[in-house]
Amino acid sequence: MVSIESAHLIGRERDRGAGEVFQYRSPVSGALLEPASPQAGASEVDRALALAAAAAEELAELPLRRRAELLERIAAALEALAPELLPLTHEETGLPQARLQGECARTANQLRLFAAAVCEGAWLDARIDPAQPQRAPVPKPDIRMLMHPVGPVAVFGASNFPLAFSVAGGDTAAALAAGCPVIVKAHPRHPRTSQRVGEMIQKVVADLGLPPGTFSLIHGDRAELSVALVSHPLLKSVAFTGSLAVGRRLYDVAAARSEPIPVFAEMASVNPIFALPQRLAEDYASMASGFVQSFTLGVGQFCTKPGLLFAVAGPALQRFVAAAAAEVEKLPAATMLHSDIKCSYDDGLQNFRRLAGVNVVARGREATGCEATPTLHATNSATFIATPRLHEELFGPYALIVECSSGEEMTTLARHLQGQLTASLHATAGELAGQHTLLSVLRAKTGRLIFNQFPTGVEVTHAMVHGGGYPSTTDSRFSAVGTLAIRRFLRPVCYQNFPDALLPAALQDSNPLGIRRRVDGA
Amino acid sequence: MVSIESAHLIGRERDRGAGEVFQYRSPVSGALLEPASPQAGASEVDRALALAAAAAEELAELPLRRRAELLERIAAALEALAPELLPLTHEETGLPQARLQGECARTANQLRLFAAAVCEGAWLDARIDPAQPQRAPVPKPDIRMLMHPVGPVAVFGASNFPLAFSVAGGDTAAALAAGCPVIVKAHPRHPRTSQRVGEMIQKVVADLGLPPGTFSLIHGDRAELSVALVSHPLLKSVAFTGSLAVGRRLYDVAAARSEPIPVFAEMASVNPIFALPQRLAEDYASMASGFVQSFTLGVGQFCTKPGLLFAVAGPALQRFVAAAAAEVEKLPAATMLHSDIKCSYDDGLQNFRRLAGVNVVARGREATGCEATPTLHATNSATFIATPRLHEELFGPYALIVECSSGEEMTTLARHLQGQLTASLHATAGELAGQHTLLSVLRAKTGRLIFNQFPTGVEVTHAMVHGGGYPSTTDSRFSAVGTLAIRRFLRPVCYQNFPDALLPAALQDSNPLGIRRRVDGA
Repeated sequence: MVSIESAHLIGRERDRGAGEVFQYRSPVSGALLEPASPQAGASEVDRALALAAAAAEELAELPLRRRAELLERIAAALEALAPELLPLTHEETGLPQARLQGECARTANQLRLFAAAVCEGAWLDARIDPAQPQRAPVPKPDIRMLMHPVGPVAVFGASNFPLAFSVAGGDTAAALAAGCPVIVKAHPRHPRTSQRVGEMIQKVVADLGLPPGTFSLIHGDRAELSVALVSHPLLKSVAFTGSLAVGRRLYDVAAARSEPIPVFAEMASVNPIFALPQRLAEDYASMASGFVQSFTLGVGQFCTKPGLLFAVAGPALQRFVAAAAAEVEKLPAATMLHSDIKCSYDDGLQNFRRLAGVNVVARGREATGCEATPTLHATNSATFIATPRLHEELFGPYALIVECSSGEEMTTLARHLQGQLTASLHATAGELAGQHTLLSVLRAKTGRLIFNQFPTGVEVTHAMVHGGGYPSTTDSRFSAVGTLAIRRFLRPVCYQNFPDALLPAALQDSNPLGIRRRVDGA
Repeated sequence: MVSIESAHLIGRERDRGAGEVFQYRSPVSGALLEPASPQAGASEVDRALALAAAAAEELAELPLRRRAELLERIAAALEALAPELLPLTHEETGLPQARLQGECARTANQLRLFAAAVCEGAWLDARIDPAQPQRAPVPKPDIRMLMHPVGPVAVFGASNFPLAFSVAGGDTAAALAAGCPVIVKAHPRHPRTSQRVGEMIQKVVADLGLPPGTFSLIHGDRAELSVALVSHPLLKSVAFTGSLAVGRRLYDVAAARSEPIPVFAEMASVNPIFALPQRLAEDYASMASGFVQSFTLGVGQFCTKPGLLFAVAGPALQRFVAAAAAEVEKLPAATMLHSDIKCSYDDGLQNFRRLAGVNVVARGREATGCEATPTLHATNSATFIATPRLHEELFGPYALIVECSSGEEMTTLARHLQGQLTASLHATAGELAGQHTLLSVLRAKTGRLIFNQFPTGVEVTHAMVHGGGYPSTTDSRFSAVGTLAIRRFLRPVCYQNFPDALLPAALQDSNPLGIRRRVDGA
């Protein structure tokens, strides 16, 4: 195993900190991961933000082509780093090599998609309303608008995507695409992965001659550090993927600032599936197989894991449950990301088992160490309605089947659900056509509606929405995945009566960037 | 004067409340305005929200043409109402008839602009990423995205625009354009105007057969009512124009909810002007005249009133100050919107006068009753930096000239400013070209940058940004004026693998709405 010196990366500098360190065990080997990581404090946050604020103006004015080059160079360097990086990541997270290779490819593709989007320029939303000097009673001035980066963004690395939602992940890519400096708070459970990727970005930034404050990375595992970062007066926005408790804490801190700032926290979703009777009768076997595969994929550690399935009681559901149970019982236990998640999973299962009205349908093989046992429970609608805890996410390879008495009752239960990243309907086309109310109810709280497919697997495209009502996110008006994610870090600015030569290129008469613009609303 | 029965309008109903009333004096006559208005409480809020939530699904699915028709009918009915409405409004607000006629026309035009934008459909941001069934290792699903209304919106009427930012004003128009039900909390200082306009909208909604919860209006002047409205679990968004104290209070209440919701509060801006030496020397007379006209327009009660002017000390500035003083001294006192604003203005002036280093440049004629005296002060940069109170908005016909020692010092002072709706540069084209840093500093905190014009007068267009850094608004990522304002009340939803016939019309293959869409990113 390669030895990594762990250090904060503050602009161009390496900083070993003031001596305090933290350290965790590998979920795979149980051994302490070496070396320990330095614990950042207010001083590191201060220096990173001062550099970021100093970089913000230059980054905002960087030609789009150079901004895209930054993203492309990070993508290529990440791919080059993979052979030595992924074994470290596996040891830190327990995620298998094949999954990590896929995630690395996705992360690089994501960076390249943002690079292409930056140059294409639709996200600038450029608008020109020409002057009307003859208008009575007062002349109409020339007004031109475009989207401008908000300034320094804090990115909190996620434990469950050590590459795709961590140091060089979607939030960093979207913020850099928008033209914002980034300060990454590395996830404490994969500090070595974060360190290597951070060093790679630091080098790309230096090689391209970009301002040092373009990127910084700090290590730490204390709540006070997160609070200090989110509270810092020079910070303008926060992106976070993780637990509801931590996400809400960061949101509250940001809202209580003298100048409040947005927090895009992607937190807790149970991603319900509604299985309608005819489809269930026609296709129970492949549905059961698809469902079990989806809720146990990646040890159930995806934010889009389907944790609930609603279906009408009857023979078709019985066959589905039997088929699903048979699949679950064959499944091995598998290693979770870290010991805290493993403990939460086991505690959650124990709490559910104690509830009257919740039955164990099937369990996979018994777990040891940091592993989780895939588990499928069932309950009825009365118990579900009476037990709000059953509406909440249990992170891990767990799902709950809720037996309903009718299709109408499914809609009633859908009204009880909180906000969701996804909701899936499994139905024949005829059944779907009859579910207008259910669809309306789900749409009002969900970012992605899925027909006859399973929610795990989030395409990184232009139309993807990875967002939804609270508590799936703190702000349903934005997406954390896909090119829409850039919009989180932009604000509109308009120019009134400016000489053409002093306008940003995107707004000049000759349209030197060749982007699409709205002129006089058309 | 026409007598108006004042009542809450809750869906289709009129509700006289439980007996408690409130009442204020006319700023014009000093007489109590009759009749008193009922005081709403939790019960009215509850009923209005239940109706709004029930209306939300139907409104979201209303054909765009019908949504536009609602806005057009409100515009026409407002114009028809004007002859009997505007005398009431004048008596309630002190605003002259000519101004109110202009505001009424602007309000109707604003509704029609939103109606046109609704049908044009660019705001839907429709995106289609077609399936790639052959993609390896996994097929790519069909994903289609569009913007969806967020649900019930609370609109707080503003005192300074009793038509354009009140019951049928920009926030209501934008929310209805987005497809959201609206609950208006009428401003307590123009309840009769609010009542007449509310009754007009209630009738249009009924005539068009729209759901009763599309629109409600409640009266009240207690903070508890605003808190109850913003706290209500069925509410999804809040639009407010008014003071920093009240706007921040609403923001804090919304952020503390178990499900936080956005608050678009447009609050406090001093709209600085930076006057560069050469331009000042060449054109001091017309600049002085334009400046005085802008900061005293509408008795200085515009959110874009320029409250600060920065210039380099010297003969050109002396001539400018003398010319401005001569203009101010000729100005009559004029009636303010209501007694609280008048008291705040007088208190603010007294506080400023007590500050060492702040000098009175000129005052208009002495005020009586609810009038304000136009006032121009001057100070130096050291006093300005040392006195944060001077950086804050004083609502009314007041401005402060800050003498700087150099152009560089102007940039230093710009860095000290808080977030602004607008910032204006008065310069020759050559001077502007040399102010790259000043422009960058201002752009980072401002929604609208203006060259050689004055900030009062906000065009309602596609490119207008009426927004800016805190405390000018609570959320610089959005605009309160122009078609961009619709975006505040939308969230993205995507559909994965849906049968064409069950997709929203905007996303169907045949593009039945004929709107512009992004297909595969192009």
